[in-house]
Amino acid sequence: MQVYHLDLHELPLFQGVPAAEVEQFIAATGAKIKRVSRGARILDAYKENHNIGVIVEGEAQVLAEDRFGNENVSHNLERGAMLGSTSAIMPQVPYDMAIEALTDVLVLWIPYQALLTAGPKLGRTHGLVMKNLLEAFCRKNVLMMQKIKILSQKTLRERLILYLLYKEQRQGKARVHVPGRVQLAKELECNRSALTREISSMQTEGLLHTGEDWMELDAVKIAAMD
Amino acid sequence: MQVYHLDLHELPLFQGVPAAEVEQFIAATGAKIKRVSRGARILDAYKENHNIGVIVEGEAQVLAEDRFGNENVSHNLERGAMLGSTSAIMPQVPYDMAIEALTDVLVLWIPYQALLTAGPKLGRTHGLVMKNLLEAFCRKNVLMMQKIKILSQKTLRERLILYLLYKEQRQGKARVHVPGRVQLAKELECNRSALTREISSMQTEGLLHTGEDWMELDAVKIAAMD
Repeated sequence: MQVYHLDLHELPLFQGVPAAEVEQFIAATGAKIKRVSRGARILDAYKENHNIGVIVEGEAQVLAEDRFGNENVSHNLERGAMLGSTSAIMPQVPYDMAIEALTDVLVLWIPYQALLTAGPKLGRTHGLVMKNLLEAFCRKNVLMMQKIKILSQKTLRERLILYLLYKEQRQGKARVHVPGRVQLAKELECNRSALTREISSMQTEGLLHTGEDWMELDAVKIAAMD
Repeated sequence: MQVYHLDLHELPLFQGVPAAEVEQFIAATGAKIKRVSRGARILDAYKENHNIGVIVEGEAQVLAEDRFGNENVSHNLERGAMLGSTSAIMPQVPYDMAIEALTDVLVLWIPYQALLTAGPKLGRTHGLVMKNLLEAFCRKNVLMMQKIKILSQKTLRERLILYLLYKEQRQGKARVHVPGRVQLAKELECNRSALTREISSMQTEGLLHTGEDWMELDAVKIAAMD
């Protein structure tokens, strides 16, 4: 491993673990780094998988199937992102997502069974990795719960307000960075022109201020909206 | 512990763990069982929490806050359900859900820090509990991802179809058990009368067959719908 210097200890999964202990972890679990060429599949949908993967280098995209079996781009994965955990942890549930390399990608594959049973061998290191793993799951849970709450709003206005309130919470300030309109419409699952209209009318009513890549809700007017 | 005979080894978190090892697990992690009276709070929103809870007896409900700070009933928890894991695992994220006891409730509280570091002491038992814990998280992830996909559909018809397809997958048969119309409308985040109308028109078109507590999609017609 030492030949490659991939700075694995900088990955979120190894947060708090010194580089030397990361080496030990990899030796003890039998984890391997594999290379996937640009355009190739890192994981196929519905395929058996017994490893938790972490992207060490490169970028990949998640492809989700709709009910007709058509693949749609869901979201991108970068260095540090985990993949394959659902199919490794719940082999009994058919998993309908595939992952494709957008660049050449290096993936660290950790055998799930070895990870579970490495506690006695690795002690404190194991506790840290499990903590980081649970945190990653939990963070995903929180983001999904927020997305569900956003999509459960009856009007586009309420969707946008809740979306911005969550962003405020995460970014820790009232003026939040937002993606471009196309991406924003996708995240709110709405039509782009409907979104543009809604933003204009909220601006006119003084509920919302916007700039090129930011938005800010008028806290007083929003609180009085009910 | 042995005085109570609460059959803790039957809880999903201890699946595969013999009763004697469950006792060992509890001793090693310092887990405690606490009683909460009907109507009292098991967990308050935004409150510090360092334990993962498991309901051993009784029933509780999750209360989620909307953006005005109003509490709404989200869903119920029964024997075996976990609670508090998000706030224990991610103390840095403000957690806006409270949990209230609907009956007298017994909760097993496992200190999260002790759980993480019990690997060397508990060996195989620890691996099994971590496996069960990760599976519970993962199952929740899958259900939330399905809910997001359902709510992302543009029409109520597509929402209902996808909802039923997921039920088919989980229940392993075409004729699936469904909740009453009020609950179903809530799960699809739609108006009940709109749902009733949609169900009727799908029946008329031969896309859907229904009974008192079941629904069945016409697989051939659904596949041809696109």
